Amino acid sequence: MRVLGVDPGLTRCGVGVVEGVAGRPLTMIGVGVVRTPADAELGHRLVAIERGIEEWLDTHRPQFVAVERVFSQHNVRTVMGTAQASAVAMLCASRRGIPVALHTPSEVKAAVTGSGRADKDQVGAMVTRLLRLDAPPKPADAADALALAICHIWRAPAQNRLQQAVAAHRTLKGRTA
Amino acid sequence: MRVLGVDPGLTRCGVGVVEGVAGRPLTMIGVGVVRTPADAELGHRLVAIERGIEEWLDTHRPQFVAVERVFSQHNVRTVMGTAQASAVAMLCASRRGIPVALHTPSEVKAAVTGSGRADKDQVGAMVTRLLRLDAPPKPADAADALALAICHIWRAPAQNRLQQAVAAHRTLKGRTA
Repeated sequence: MRVLGVDPGLTRCGVGVVEGVAGRPLTMIGVGVVRTPADAELGHRLVAIERGIEEWLDTHRPQFVAVERVFSQHNVRTVMGTAQASAVAMLCASRRGIPVALHTPSEVKAAVTGSGRADKDQVGAMVTRLLRLDAPPKPADAADALALAICHIWRAPAQNRLQQAVAAHRTLKGRTA
Repeated sequence: MRVLGVDPGLTRCGVGVVEGVAGRPLTMIGVGVVRTPADAELGHRLVAIERGIEEWLDTHRPQFVAVERVFSQHNVRTVMGTAQASAVAMLCASRRGIPVALHTPSEVKAAVTGSGRADKDQVGAMVTRLLRLDAPPKPADAADALALAICHIWRAPAQNRLQQAVAAHRTLKGRTA
């Protein structure tokens, strides 16, 4: 199973691709950050994020996209941008018929560290260990994207199979309509 | 000047096209609502909104798109969806090089009714009068989209010309790059 994790943000959108199945060692396929200039117009920033996500989808062809679920009780100044960046990521995936899963930050932390209240360093350390990397991926957004992908591979494999079947059915319907 | 106003929302995304210049009677070119089913997956709803907005852009070829500026202090349950729908509208416009303007709800109300705290009925009544319609457009999201377009035509014509020049320059750069 190949999953693209997306830690959405306007200034830094973390992206990481992980391959594997639950219960086996996982492999990092790629990690990076899609950046947009803070002084650019919002519309242009969203176009740049779309372009970046499309490149990651083209290059790595994930079967699932896992996006951090955004809550409005987060930092009020940044939450709108986070929601908008996540919308672009979900749109890019759904347009291609790739199932999108949303995981909350605490689900992701609990999946990789065992605690839903783990801090950034702990998440980075576990991502490094689980993917057998030499050092924690920088910036933290990139490590978080990998953690999302790992979380998705480990959570509810049955649910993933169901989602994929529904997506395949929808794509088929779209083609024959 | 032809403006597409967008009142963003996942369940009902109001859209309205108005043509005219400040100081002259305005003309409604079209009004409607892009709807997505509440029980559909978020990614699929965003794809449906993209499709709807693209149709309105194709049909009416606006020179500007005016989108309601979303604040996170709004209703917490709906604000994330509103932010995500607005991201899709901005993305569609910016991708085509159409300048996007954001106006706050109180700017829009003040523009069409004279008061930033006017209620829905008052906005509907003024939209009806200003566009010489037989009845207020329904639902309120459609009327709000028209109010956004009117607000944009009336506010800062100089700023619009500047934005258009910047957008044309960027499109040109993109083509010659």
